[in-house]
Parts: sequence; C-alpha cells; structure tokens
Amino acid sequence: MRRTITGFSNPTVKALRALREKKHRKAAQRFLAEGLRLLTDARECGHLPETLVMATGRDPHPLLDALESEVLAAGGDVIETDAEILAKITGKDNPQAVAGVFAEFDTTLTTLDRNSAKIWLVAQALRDPGNLGTMLRTGDAVGAGGLILLDDCADPFSVEAVRASMGAVFTQRIAQTRWEDFIAWLRRGEGQLVAASLRDALPYREAPYAAPCFVMVGNESRGLPEAYELACDLRVTMPMKGRADSLNAAVAAAVLAYEVLAKLGG
Amino acid sequence: MRRTITGFSNPTVKALRALREKKHRKAAQRFLAEGLRLLTDARECGHLPETLVMATGRDPHPLLDALESEVLAAGGDVIETDAEILAKITGKDNPQAVAGVFAEFDTTLTTLDRNSAKIWLVAQALRDPGNLGTMLRTGDAVGAGGLILLDDCADPFSVEAVRASMGAVFTQRIAQTRWEDFIAWLRRGEGQLVAASLRDALPYREAPYAAPCFVMVGNESRGLPEAYELACDLRVTMPMKGRADSLNAAVAAAVLAYEVLAKLGG
Repeated sequence: MRRTITGFSNPTVKALRALREKKHRKAAQRFLAEGLRLLTDARECGHLPETLVMATGRDPHPLLDALESEVLAAGGDVIETDAEILAKITGKDNPQAVAGVFAEFDTTLTTLDRNSAKIWLVAQALRDPGNLGTMLRTGDAVGAGGLILLDDCADPFSVEAVRASMGAVFTQRIAQTRWEDFIAWLRRGEGQLVAASLRDALPYREAPYAAPCFVMVGNESRGLPEAYELACDLRVTMPMKGRADSLNAAVAAAVLAYEVLAKLGG
Repeated sequence: MRRTITGFSNPTVKALRALREKKHRKAAQRFLAEGLRLLTDARECGHLPETLVMATGRDPHPLLDALESEVLAAGGDVIETDAEILAKITGKDNPQAVAGVFAEFDTTLTTLDRNSAKIWLVAQALRDPGNLGTMLRTGDAVGAGGLILLDDCADPFSVEAVRASMGAVFTQRIAQTRWEDFIAWLRRGEGQLVAASLRDALPYREAPYAAPCFVMVGNESRGLPEAYELACDLRVTMPMKGRADSLNAAVAAAVLAYEVLAKLGG
C-alpha cells in the first residue's frame, strides 16, 4: 500500500524511529536498513523490506523505482514523507535517503548447516557494532557461511552494524547463542575451532586448518576467556612486531580468515 | 606544577574540553589521550603529557603515581579536579579516568626516513577516525614505520583515532600530505607503491613485494582515484567470494600488510 505521511507525531513515524533503539527492535522483531545501495543489495539477495520510506521531493532513480514496485507487488507498504520527517527517522539530513524495515532473521544456531561453507566466523562478547558489521562484510568476502555471536555481543540488527556490513547482513547467516550451547553444538559434528592466542600457539601461516573452520575472536578489551582458548582445536599466533600484543578484533578475524581461505581454498 | 580545579567555568577546564574539537586542537597544536593504559604506553615510548588531569577521589595506582612524578619532574602540570568536571573533559562518566594533553607531533612527510622500515601504510581520504586509529594499531603490529595520510583524512589526533590506535599513535610516525607531494617524494627514492585494485592486478599472495613497500588504501565509499591506482608499482587483488567487491579499508590494509610482512620478513 502507498501512503503519504505529513505529521511528525504520526504513530508510524514514531514506530520507525523507535527501531533505532534495541529494545524496540526486539519488541517489534524488525530492523532498519538505510540507503539505496544497501536496499538494492538486499533485494538482489531476495530480501524485500516490509516497509519502504522515502522523501516526496526525491530525484527519480531506476533502482528505487524497481524496489518500490517489488515492495508493492509483495504486499508491502511504501511511505512517502517530507525530507524533515525522513531525517528524523534515518538520523540523516539527506533528502535522497531511503530506508526499509525488514523482519529480523532467524538467528538460532541449530538451523545452521555447518557444511554449507568452509569458513565460519565466531565473535565472543564483541561490543562494537562497527566491528560486528565489518566481520559480516569480511565473512562475505572470504565466502564464509556466517557469523556466530557468543555471549553478550552488540546487536547485529543495529543501524550501525547493518551499515558497516555493507549488505553482508543479508548474505551471511547470523547466529546468536551462548558459549556452552555453541561448544556443545560444535562437538556434535565436524568443525575445527581456531583462535589467535599467545598460549602454545602455532604460527598462523603454518597451522593445519581444516574445514569447516570456525575462526573465533574475543571481546575488544578482554580478548577471549581462557577456557574458550583452551577449548580450541588450534591456537595460532600472528606476528606482533611492535608494542601492542593484539590487533583490532575485526582485523584479527580478517587476517586469520584470509589465511584459512588461502589454505583451504574457496 | 600541581593544581586543584573546582569550577566548571575554569578556563583550563574549557581549554581541555575544547581539545575534543578539531579546530581547537589545530589552534592549540595539542591533543588529548585518555586512559591510564594509553598514557603509560605513551610514557614508555618517551612521550610525557604536558598536562595530566585526574579525579581527586581516585583510587591510588602505581602506574598513575609513576606518571604523575615524571610529569612533575619534567616541568608539566598535574591537575586534580572532581569527578564531574573530569567527566566533562573526558566525556566519560568514570572517576578512575585520567587524561593527558600532548603536543602534536611533526607530521611533515619530508622528515620521514623511508628506509627505517620495510612497510609503510598509506591512506587516502580516510574519513573514519576509528579506521585511522585501527590502521595505526595494525602498523605497529606489522612493524610498519608509520602511516601516511593523503588528501582530506580524519584527524589522527582526534580522541576517537587516538583511542582506536591503542597507543600506536605514540609508536608510529604519522605524515599528513597531498597526493602530488607524496608521489613526488616517493619517486625521489626507493619505494614500491601497492594498492588493492581490480585493474590488471596480480593475486595478492603471489605478488613481488619489495621494501620499502607502501601499502595504500582509499576512501571508505569511493576507494582510490583511478590516477592513484595507475601510479602504483603493483596492483594486487584479494579474493572476493561474496556479493561485495571490497573490504573495510582498515581490514584491506591489514590483510595486505600481513601478506607483505610474510613475504619481506619483519
């Protein structure tokens, strides 16, 4: 259905804006993705927004037209509103802005097919949504199956994580679980758990990676808990030539994942 | 000199707080670094703050005591203030917070000794201070000599960049220049300029890297201008198995830099 909204206090505007906050996302089980590029990526991966929001005074664009017709054909809503109200929803002062509302995906671990990819990324208590989105983007690039989030991670459906993923939130499987459930699930089948570690670790360029390989990184300040490192099948070490003893979590995951990709093939 | 400040409107408080903004940093040629760990890293690298700020009600800490005595011995200022005023300066509600004011470093390109390291990182129009700080951190880890910032990059002395660098802002040389000046300087001596590219590029694992190797990444949305790519001595490509055709800039720099390190040695 197509609608035009003119008032700031319209309940739909309030509901859309509320999706910027985690508690409202969880309650609605919906999330916001912004930008024509991201929404087009989503569409090409088979994900249409339930609701599409754009400015009345926007310039025409063929990709936006395509999106609009498909959303309407699928029974979704297209909402036109003025640039100021749109800015309130998207948080961006850009009259070309467009946003879509998507239903959150299934993030249960048990529906994940571990043999559908050779590489999986795993993050424990990752707090920064930018790092989380970057890991999704890296996962897409290395052909990973998805990202498994352990313990209390940032919300993968936050606007920041969705943006940093550059569309990979729509291509990568995401699972949210606790360590105990993850390790129990992992040990019920094949799977090599790998982490960067300083504990009796092999040089990362010489380690015997095996598919499906689960590359795990820990929290930005604390790293991985000792018990998690000890439960790994393989601990690897990367050169640290300077003063620091660790890399940014998303960087460490990427350097490791590209090494695994080089060894296991795509 | 040791001082206690009790009023929010004290000019020193205002001056310190102003360092959170770029224009005031440029005018003062000073920047803020926050946290005991960062300040201790700085001290161990031979960089003492001119001014150290901490809360009156803080818990004692041997590293903080060491910092305090050295700052006073070097003729610097130690300012004690109450937790609320400190929170106004640091932007953090943490009574254990401590902040230091440092003189900005020399960032001219011409004083940089290209043969002092095998790897250098180069970023063009990098807009995100987190990415910039992460590149400094990665540079430290791979033993790079420093980070060369081309064109309009984020400020390496912003609180966000300094924080993301995890102390590497004190170990890595930073140069700020324009492309024309950089390429002219580079061609006056040895140096291989390398970038990830889709243009007649070699696989990044098989490319003939040579020291000093300058690993360049471009702006987060636009990548590198074509002319910059064409001026490279080596264009390399990294596998992109998914939908996306690029990595996060700091991730791309890290994957490439670790490959160069593996090939050239530390």
